[in-house]
Amino acid sequence: MSGRLPARRAKARVPVLRLGGGGPARDDVVVEEPLEVRLGKETLLVTLRTPGRDLDLVRGLLFTEGLVDRPEDVAAVAHCADVPREARGNVVTFALRRGARLNREGTLRVGLVTSACGVCGRAVVDSVGRDAPRVEGGPVVTRELLAGLPAALRAGQDLFGRTGGLHAAGLFDARGRRLALAEDVGRHNAVDKVIGEAARFGRLPLAEALLLVSGRAGFEIVHKARRAGIPILCSVSAPSSLAVRLAREGGQTLVGFLREGRCNVYCGAERVAGAGARR
Amino acid sequence: MSGRLPARRAKARVPVLRLGGGGPARDDVVVEEPLEVRLGKETLLVTLRTPGRDLDLVRGLLFTEGLVDRPEDVAAVAHCADVPREARGNVVTFALRRGARLNREGTLRVGLVTSACGVCGRAVVDSVGRDAPRVEGGPVVTRELLAGLPAALRAGQDLFGRTGGLHAAGLFDARGRRLALAEDVGRHNAVDKVIGEAARFGRLPLAEALLLVSGRAGFEIVHKARRAGIPILCSVSAPSSLAVRLAREGGQTLVGFLREGRCNVYCGAERVAGAGARR
Repeated sequence: MSGRLPARRAKARVPVLRLGGGGPARDDVVVEEPLEVRLGKETLLVTLRTPGRDLDLVRGLLFTEGLVDRPEDVAAVAHCADVPREARGNVVTFALRRGARLNREGTLRVGLVTSACGVCGRAVVDSVGRDAPRVEGGPVVTRELLAGLPAALRAGQDLFGRTGGLHAAGLFDARGRRLALAEDVGRHNAVDKVIGEAARFGRLPLAEALLLVSGRAGFEIVHKARRAGIPILCSVSAPSSLAVRLAREGGQTLVGFLREGRCNVYCGAERVAGAGARR
Repeated sequence: MSGRLPARRAKARVPVLRLGGGGPARDDVVVEEPLEVRLGKETLLVTLRTPGRDLDLVRGLLFTEGLVDRPEDVAAVAHCADVPREARGNVVTFALRRGARLNREGTLRVGLVTSACGVCGRAVVDSVGRDAPRVEGGPVVTRELLAGLPAALRAGQDLFGRTGGLHAAGLFDARGRRLALAEDVGRHNAVDKVIGEAARFGRLPLAEALLLVSGRAGFEIVHKARRAGIPILCSVSAPSSLAVRLAREGGQTLVGFLREGRCNVYCGAERVAGAGARR
């Protein structure tokens, strides 16, 4: 293992036939490729993602999925060079810091909801509460600040304009300044990438931050934000029932349908100036 | 176990504060709840879904995820009545037909891409080829027929208008008539529901059908469609690189950005009248 690996591409050019204007052409599509994550030399998991920010992705998912207890448990992450040529850049290895433990059961993605959680929303929310503390405090922001976030997110999306096929997640500070941004075919990956970047800089918990996701807000996204201690979670689209419940019980502010200067606040309205008492 | 269970609700009313017009109100959000799937009395998996069409969902996912080899291997599916009150309607049990085998390894969701697949797109596509045959033949449709599908899908979406938080999948015949439609917080669930419905009526493989999904087309969706033998797969949004590759190698027609009378054909153009030779 040495030297720099060529980065995998995040977009690929494919032939396309445009019907209704255009005919044959070539078009960019977003790349979706497997990433293998190894602990030392042992394969731990394989996930599909858009190449780019792989090391942040791994830092983020190891922590948000509960495979490690603390972000600093991941001592180092690197691409493996000793893999076949066609897999170069798609294999990452990490090391734990001395004394840290890997929770093999974790809560990995699909495994997030296990039979141990029970099969009612109540039990699922409770199970999350056991591995992520309630979020207390955090900033109070104005409606105007919230309204400006989608444009700030979009402005930072390099890939979307070319492929139209990406989700984005952005971290912002309480003044609306962008701290981190990531794009991926998977919304959960985009969230893991920005949380992983914050982890790399030792900035977790993100007690003063806002997270904006480009799509809907489901259970998984709220859970990841809570693991990272993020008090205000915004989505440009709709939340699910479980997302609202989890955010409410976790003390988080959940904002949905954030678009065209409007939004819905589902819980935690005390963090939105002028929005009145806690709901 | 007897009698009918009360159905879980697919939408829930939550308090919401509208900023930028409205103030406090109550709003419908789409329900996201865990569903436990048992083989007999043994818990096999738990997945998050929007309640409704649970039995079709289970039939669909058991087959599309490769847990059973043939759709008819699932002899019966039913909700369990002997569960705690709060979990009623969220636990489903199924029985295998005599002689059928459960592939416990399966390819379940996240597990779909396993380390055995390797970590390059090539290996992933090859691994799918081993458990889903190429799709041959199928109908030839006009561009006008394709252009009409999104409106036909939307017209059948009961929940979307009320919650804005749902994905939809629709099966259509070669004349554009809707065969099945399902909505869910998860796009993959919506696809499993319509394929499961077709399986229930013994209609797999869907050799003459078109599948339309409301969001993007990724690897997972193309894989499920291929398991069901669907020749034409349409998405209102962008495909990923792996989706294009998998569809091309599987002999499927992949249509993306199907909106406002236009679309892009990424492969299998021979099934679109007037679109020219195979690409």
